[in-house]
Amino acid sequence: MKRNRLIFVTNDDGFASKGFGAVIETARKFGDVVAIAPERPQSGMSQAITIYNPLYLRTIRKEAGLEIYSLSGTPVDCVKMGFDHMLRGRKVDLVISGINHGSNSAVNVLYSGTMGAAIEGSFYECPSIGLSLISHDENADFTASMHFGERIIRAVLDGEVRMPLCLNVNVPVGGIDEIRGIRVCRQTRGFWREEFFRRQDPHNRDYFWMTGEFVNGEPDAEDTDEWALSHNFVSVVPIQVDMTDYSQMGSVGRMFAED
Amino acid sequence: MKRNRLIFVTNDDGFASKGFGAVIETARKFGDVVAIAPERPQSGMSQAITIYNPLYLRTIRKEAGLEIYSLSGTPVDCVKMGFDHMLRGRKVDLVISGINHGSNSAVNVLYSGTMGAAIEGSFYECPSIGLSLISHDENADFTASMHFGERIIRAVLDGEVRMPLCLNVNVPVGGIDEIRGIRVCRQTRGFWREEFFRRQDPHNRDYFWMTGEFVNGEPDAEDTDEWALSHNFVSVVPIQVDMTDYSQMGSVGRMFAED
Repeated sequence: MKRNRLIFVTNDDGFASKGFGAVIETARKFGDVVAIAPERPQSGMSQAITIYNPLYLRTIRKEAGLEIYSLSGTPVDCVKMGFDHMLRGRKVDLVISGINHGSNSAVNVLYSGTMGAAIEGSFYECPSIGLSLISHDENADFTASMHFGERIIRAVLDGEVRMPLCLNVNVPVGGIDEIRGIRVCRQTRGFWREEFFRRQDPHNRDYFWMTGEFVNGEPDAEDTDEWALSHNFVSVVPIQVDMTDYSQMGSVGRMFAED
Repeated sequence: MKRNRLIFVTNDDGFASKGFGAVIETARKFGDVVAIAPERPQSGMSQAITIYNPLYLRTIRKEAGLEIYSLSGTPVDCVKMGFDHMLRGRKVDLVISGINHGSNSAVNVLYSGTMGAAIEGSFYECPSIGLSLISHDENADFTASMHFGERIIRAVLDGEVRMPLCLNVNVPVGGIDEIRGIRVCRQTRGFWREEFFRRQDPHNRDYFWMTGEFVNGEPDAEDTDEWALSHNFVSVVPIQVDMTDYSQMGSVGRMFAED
């Protein structure tokens, strides 16, 4: 008997988000789905793990071919709970994290809980995809994201894949026909600069809201994900986890040459 | 009049940790210190940022050449609060994050709040160092970490530095004389596997504690940080933030060649 494919799904906006429903609907076209998402929104949680607190797991839905749980932790906790506990010993064919409400292009990959989970998924010997729509609207239209997400999932499941494989996929806002196609790109150089807004609580204590703006360090570079998105392409950046700056090995080595 | 150097200090164990006192003592040898650390321990917080909550800033100490604050956020929030609010427009000579209680070698760089802050610091046009002692003991002896930390800070401040520069420094346990020197290394390949321990709360609800083990994917590779630490060297890994997997650009490109 042919084994159904098994897809593990998570996100960072929490199990109740619209994008989570969208990604589950897409994933079910490819096999059985086990989904564990954070109990509460976890945007900006990066690759954070829970060390000081216990984790509560709650069953949201359980039927043939679909199980949905929520976990009182981070997106990475959800992946670990999935692979190291719930699915321990079972072969998983694919991890999908998303569909995120908001862009994870450029340096956002470092802050994103969606991508934190996708990266974590790639540590478990199966391909991993982080999928984001570049709109923070909680009622965003995920039609095009689902369409392109499906094409990318099919390409990964049916293609010649070299492991480890982790893809950071971002979809521009707009209808399917408005999007010009899929571009494989590199991560745009850039950073965020923040502004802090001071307010006062009813106890006369100051507090701050942080809000930022992305500074694109190379707006004209056509091989970057920011360029692709601003020109209405879906961006696909393959992601790896070695953060060593090999270009600095020599110069840093000379700083400690006497040791 | 000669301007004093300005060192920005943060950590992930919180302002009350022993390692934070140790790093401030070390940093003061080089100039004026402004330190903002999390109000509460933030280990494992990676490069997380606070999006949904306001941030409270509290003055812990303020005297000539030394200011210490706590912030109700993540380590990265502390860096952003420092550079984009408190020190806005001032030249900062160095960021130091630590001294962390526990190793941030190998793939720990991805989960570490200490390194999240150090990486964030490198976005602000000054060199940045994450400094960790590979002991989780809250009363750990930081003598050797301070000694080697001081040597590395001096090398960075006095040396020919190519920017951006971010160093992930880990110090083995032991006295100064037991440590064999400083080695510039690359990040060890590997990953964590977790175990989940189930308990029951007084309301009969199950919960889980997550605890893991690092799996070294290349224990014999002498150019890695894990090898250096296990052979009693201080490890220094230069860090960069482009997570693009350039080795996969071709194969992933072919998956979407028709687009």
